[in-house]
Amino acid sequence: MAKKLLDHITYPEDLRRLAPEELPQLAAELRDFIIDIVSVKEGHLGASLGVVELTIALHYIFNTPHDQLVWDVGHQAYGHKILTGRKEIFHTNRQLGGISGFPKREESVYDTFGTGHSSTSISAALGMAIASGLQGDTEKQHIAVIGDASIASGMAFEALNHAGVTDANLLIVLNDNAIGIDPSVGAVKEYLTQVKKNRKLARNNIIRALNFDYTGPVDGHDFRALLRELSRLKAMKGPKFLHIITTKGKGLQKAEEDQVRYHAPGKFDKITGEILVKPVKDKEPPKYQDVFGHTLVELARKNPHIVGITPAMPTGSSLKFMMDAIPDRAFDVGIAEQHAVTLAAGMATQGLVPFCTIYSTFLQRAYDQVIHDVALQDLPVIFCLDRAGLVGEDGATHHGVFDLAYLRCIPNLIIYAPASETDLRNIMYTAQLGLPHPIAIRYPRGRGITPNWQLPFANVPIGKGKMVRDGQDIAVLTIGSIARNMAPAIDLLTEDQKDKVAHYDMQFVKPLDELLLHKILGRFSTLITVEDGCIAGGFGSAVLEFAAANGYKNKITCLGIPDSFAAQGKVAELQELAHISPESIARTITELL
Amino acid sequence: MAKKLLDHITYPEDLRRLAPEELPQLAAELRDFIIDIVSVKEGHLGASLGVVELTIALHYIFNTPHDQLVWDVGHQAYGHKILTGRKEIFHTNRQLGGISGFPKREESVYDTFGTGHSSTSISAALGMAIASGLQGDTEKQHIAVIGDASIASGMAFEALNHAGVTDANLLIVLNDNAIGIDPSVGAVKEYLTQVKKNRKLARNNIIRALNFDYTGPVDGHDFRALLRELSRLKAMKGPKFLHIITTKGKGLQKAEEDQVRYHAPGKFDKITGEILVKPVKDKEPPKYQDVFGHTLVELARKNPHIVGITPAMPTGSSLKFMMDAIPDRAFDVGIAEQHAVTLAAGMATQGLVPFCTIYSTFLQRAYDQVIHDVALQDLPVIFCLDRAGLVGEDGATHHGVFDLAYLRCIPNLIIYAPASETDLRNIMYTAQLGLPHPIAIRYPRGRGITPNWQLPFANVPIGKGKMVRDGQDIAVLTIGSIARNMAPAIDLLTEDQKDKVAHYDMQFVKPLDELLLHKILGRFSTLITVEDGCIAGGFGSAVLEFAAANGYKNKITCLGIPDSFAAQGKVAELQELAHISPESIARTITELL
Repeated sequence: MAKKLLDHITYPEDLRRLAPEELPQLAAELRDFIIDIVSVKEGHLGASLGVVELTIALHYIFNTPHDQLVWDVGHQAYGHKILTGRKEIFHTNRQLGGISGFPKREESVYDTFGTGHSSTSISAALGMAIASGLQGDTEKQHIAVIGDASIASGMAFEALNHAGVTDANLLIVLNDNAIGIDPSVGAVKEYLTQVKKNRKLARNNIIRALNFDYTGPVDGHDFRALLRELSRLKAMKGPKFLHIITTKGKGLQKAEEDQVRYHAPGKFDKITGEILVKPVKDKEPPKYQDVFGHTLVELARKNPHIVGITPAMPTGSSLKFMMDAIPDRAFDVGIAEQHAVTLAAGMATQGLVPFCTIYSTFLQRAYDQVIHDVALQDLPVIFCLDRAGLVGEDGATHHGVFDLAYLRCIPNLIIYAPASETDLRNIMYTAQLGLPHPIAIRYPRGRGITPNWQLPFANVPIGKGKMVRDGQDIAVLTIGSIARNMAPAIDLLTEDQKDKVAHYDMQFVKPLDELLLHKILGRFSTLITVEDGCIAGGFGSAVLEFAAANGYKNKITCLGIPDSFAAQGKVAELQELAHISPESIARTITELL
Repeated sequence: MAKKLLDHITYPEDLRRLAPEELPQLAAELRDFIIDIVSVKEGHLGASLGVVELTIALHYIFNTPHDQLVWDVGHQAYGHKILTGRKEIFHTNRQLGGISGFPKREESVYDTFGTGHSSTSISAALGMAIASGLQGDTEKQHIAVIGDASIASGMAFEALNHAGVTDANLLIVLNDNAIGIDPSVGAVKEYLTQVKKNRKLARNNIIRALNFDYTGPVDGHDFRALLRELSRLKAMKGPKFLHIITTKGKGLQKAEEDQVRYHAPGKFDKITGEILVKPVKDKEPPKYQDVFGHTLVELARKNPHIVGITPAMPTGSSLKFMMDAIPDRAFDVGIAEQHAVTLAAGMATQGLVPFCTIYSTFLQRAYDQVIHDVALQDLPVIFCLDRAGLVGEDGATHHGVFDLAYLRCIPNLIIYAPASETDLRNIMYTAQLGLPHPIAIRYPRGRGITPNWQLPFANVPIGKGKMVRDGQDIAVLTIGSIARNMAPAIDLLTEDQKDKVAHYDMQFVKPLDELLLHKILGRFSTLITVEDGCIAGGFGSAVLEFAAANGYKNKITCLGIPDSFAAQGKVAELQELAHISPESIARTITELL
């Protein structure tokens, strides 16, 4: 290419000076820019590549930021970020102090609404559109770009149901690529597939039934079609719906061919697309998710009552292993956390043993179902909460730091956090043997600490903690995998200090090991609790409640995530900020000794 | 009527011995029975009257309890309860120790799944149906009865989206009466209205698009049609959908005419249907919901940025007042808590001042949206949480006792609980002036304590508690309307004891009044916290965390709802059970003195 168009574009106003014929070249440059940086800095690749033309066309036709543009989920917003003032800092994507991997209001006026969790865009854009109407602006447009996996989620449907009876200036662009992170599932997906095959169906479809002006399907990589339809829709009042077809990973052959793997491929060769696989270290500890996935298959082969459920995260949760091995008993229900939980409850009433795996942050979407459908009826559903605690680069929208607090107040629920892969494996074994209550098992993103994890199963006594090391003066009580920070923390102490520190892995947030707590509170005047969840209402708070209810007056210091939204960055960096890194723990111990 | 058929029916097996021609007589008797008892014992009337024929027909055709029947929400299950072994104890409905006003698993094998919150039935029944399939039972049927208001909620849509791609033996009966508690709203409702008018539309409709075998619409009061269709559908495999049309309140003229008021009319004359209005006492304190409703109108008339949002509770929340007075700025979005919250967030981005009113127990449905869409972006949405604390006869599904715990861990959120109607009024005034954060205001069901509540507005200082009475030895810290139990508690003490008790109304759970807490902790060795929410993670827990973080070693006793699901009954009875009644508080004070 002779001249680089992208070099001259900082904001959409620059983009709008281009002739329509120049847009395909810009699209090619924008793809190259995204690939260049994501190939070395990592991030979400496929979704942004798929909407390069749409991104350019939207900013070209609409008067952003006056017209309000909301990107659902936000995986696909890299092109948008690059074209709206963040080209020069795009290489800081997802790093501590850098730009967010998702739209974020405080980052840019073009990011009208922060996203990260799916299916919020229609509600948000409708709220904006109603506001504009009330404020007398009848020209302003409000656009929600949403994928076919996200639009099939309940929340999006609630918004459609409302929007259809308003006269709000709302444009919904359905970015239909038949995939979320994993391939889309469900009746809506099947229906959309029919619509694509049979344009007659498009004229009398679900969306029209909900009172929307429907246009489509349109090729989302064809600038002529996109510009024509968007111009037309811009001039149209009221709720309207544009159905476009795109290819996730468009423009990078390997990403088009393996869309699941290239959703967020890590580092790759920007020319060939080849993923740069890190050499597997000998005896590297496994990812917690894989321990879950493999163990579930192992257990399910022996226990015919076991079923597995994931709301649209087969790959991320590794339920995929069971879906491949025992397909009739493993269910991907789509982005439908609420349904997933109550489906599990229904199954449990019939004697099945449902393992319902949901990321900690996404279980927030099914909070009422955990309370009302599972715990109130005391149904023994087994929740496996992946990505609990600090998740790293995905940042504030994705940290699973609230779970211990929001689950702890629910009666009947057992709450367990494994300190190692072996613990995860054994609690899964124990749970499927039959517990009288539901249980939530929460474990972190990434790898653990135990290369040889595939040991014979052992029963985990419910409500029992354990002493990891003895000491004289201070008891440190940890919950879950943050226990791994204790050994390096103790290494930082003097030999004299070391003798003074005892470490207890409490294992259960609920029921608390009251016998052990009585012992600890009776023996140590000073306690430290450590968790990778919020302090407010969390594990430490449970220890305080127990101590108060039993009249203890020990000094108890609670370490955990303070009362603000944790940032993005490497987990170690974030632990340091939250004062739960090995160094911070050692510092606290030293201060208290 | 010569002989009473109902006298000879205890279980559905008795019912199935009747000839089809006898069913209309049974329906008439069942209606009379419901009316007889509900007219004096109170409860949910209209919904159960509307499904008398359906209830009889379902138990007549299907092999309950082997076939699994799930009643969505459960307001309509009185006839079901009476025909399934609970006729003789139906008069204990909703009382302490009596039968639940909703289906409840521990009460009967015919209550296959407990309900109370809406839109769970399809997920639950699908879970059961999949289980039956895995267990090799291909004959068993699984029936979800769901209303048109509930089916338009996101969770139901998620279940439909999944069910449509299964071969589960699932029958969904859509009980279409165009009303939930208030009239149904939204595009689905409009669509269903079209379907009823135009049977052609029925042949090519939304439900068919989702892969269901659709039948209807059918007159839900016509036994011949019901028996015919249910028999046919019973023999059919896979997911199927029966759309019936009923009249809420059917058979009691006044209930048919005023369906909103007769949803749960209180006591009424069983012959005329006339509601027995309690004589209004002179200067009776108002209901909190009405203080909310009237104050919002008053504020909105002056502040054009104010909007009001309710998910399907205009009457119950009294947002109805604003919907009548300022209709373009007050929104009933249907049973769509998730959408309601994010819609409010979208509006807040544009400078509107959204009052989003949701029952405390239903906000559990929008927990993620409060965290991810409101608090994370620090948008100043004003949540008004009605029915917080113990709600009385609705029981375990409806108590709003978890809110302080599940909200307290959310950064940026202000949490306020008014001790009186005047406090509610003033915090609403303060909030709409413009706060830098979102706020949750939680207040109880029913009447308060202040007959003369309509005083001029006063600003509430954020994060400030207040001393209600001074004392020497013990400080009692209350949050919210439970403060009203303090005066009668103190009345139960001896004169000597009275002098020793100070009472602080802390007002804010977050931010805590740290200055005041330092004073209290510095002055009193013994503290009691009192809340009408769960102890685990609640207000008392916040005080413990503060005390621990600041090195205080006072004796702190936390009173509140213990770690089990609270029962149904009169609020005073339930407070006694939870040890937060005036008598219990006095007892605790005496013990600690």
